[in-house]
Amino acid sequence: MNTHHSEESPCDPLPVMPHTAPHRVVLDTSLFVNPDARTSLGNTPTEALETFLFLAAQIHILEFYMPPSIFEELLHFVEKDKIPGDLLVILHQKPPKRHELKCPAVLLYELIDDMRERVNKGLRIAEKAVRGAEKNKADEMIQDLRRKYREALREGIIDSKEDVDLLLLAMELDALLITADQGLIRWAEKLGIQWLFPEKFKDYLMGAIKRTELISGQRE
Amino acid sequence: MNTHHSEESPCDPLPVMPHTAPHRVVLDTSLFVNPDARTSLGNTPTEALETFLFLAAQIHILEFYMPPSIFEELLHFVEKDKIPGDLLVILHQKPPKRHELKCPAVLLYELIDDMRERVNKGLRIAEKAVRGAEKNKADEMIQDLRRKYREALREGIIDSKEDVDLLLLAMELDALLITADQGLIRWAEKLGIQWLFPEKFKDYLMGAIKRTELISGQRE
Repeated sequence: MNTHHSEESPCDPLPVMPHTAPHRVVLDTSLFVNPDARTSLGNTPTEALETFLFLAAQIHILEFYMPPSIFEELLHFVEKDKIPGDLLVILHQKPPKRHELKCPAVLLYELIDDMRERVNKGLRIAEKAVRGAEKNKADEMIQDLRRKYREALREGIIDSKEDVDLLLLAMELDALLITADQGLIRWAEKLGIQWLFPEKFKDYLMGAIKRTELISGQRE
Repeated sequence: MNTHHSEESPCDPLPVMPHTAPHRVVLDTSLFVNPDARTSLGNTPTEALETFLFLAAQIHILEFYMPPSIFEELLHFVEKDKIPGDLLVILHQKPPKRHELKCPAVLLYELIDDMRERVNKGLRIAEKAVRGAEKNKADEMIQDLRRKYREALREGIIDSKEDVDLLLLAMELDALLITADQGLIRWAEKLGIQWLFPEKFKDYLMGAIKRTELISGQRE
């Protein structure tokens, strides 16, 4: 799973480029689509993607990846004809090796405990809605129920194929995961995956451009 | 995870004792507690456990295991003073190596898809109950809601720490899992764990006694 094999002894002096610094980055759509997350990149998803491509083209020390399932999501939000062909060269679409990867079995306990608690919470919310329908209109109670139920059962957990794709790809590539999704961040923590908030993404890209110039000896 | 390593080539003639036959058995409580499941062993959980111990004492070709979490469940149902001390020698209590075992990552997709579908079903059930409360008493609707909700969100899935313990222990020991739980059976199938319905357990034990006698050369 881990593609990184360091040959250094732990007592070596500070290495120039530590092997634990990821050189692969896995991107979530939230980065371009979520209005709060993309602010530093652009006002629209298309603009944010264009800015990213412009900056990423100047970076030679990082590789950018996105699972195809997430890329498909992204395409719903951008004006495809405005996106330069660079995209396919700069942003690699790679599905995780779903049938080769393994995850620590101890996570099953956490996933199941988590779901159990949320399922109980969902029932309590439903019970309250039924009581409420004695006094209020059923339609209103159902609107309220839907919102609260989804909040309780979906937020803060990984709950889709796309979420799992992101985690597994980051795990497989030993990559840095950029996402605004709290559920994904919680799981990245459990799996030892490095992560970064989208708000910091532009700074990260700018830093990588500087480093690229430094390494190429092209800096004034 | 798999403790079995066969040295035979696939073209060898029929082996006397095929290596794929498990010699370890992991027991669920349902075997002793569930009235439908234990019929062949006894009328009460205590009687069923006594019968099992009586038969298991005559078997030298199998080892019996139970995770401590499941054993604790069992103790709630039996009259402890009636159970012979044999129990601790015959039925080994072993927790799975939770932090060493790994499971195929592809199962995360299935678990999450499964939960997603059930969560949606739970919301539809809750919505119906709210509509029902316009015409019927809220208390009645809540009774009905609880039953239907639990059925939709719990049955046929693994939903507890104890369930995961059983699966992981069977996986770790490459054992045969005896359970009446449909959720566990579905997951045993996914993980390549051999399983048996409790209804067949007595026959299985009788067969193992015969085989023990045959191997020991004590058969008339």
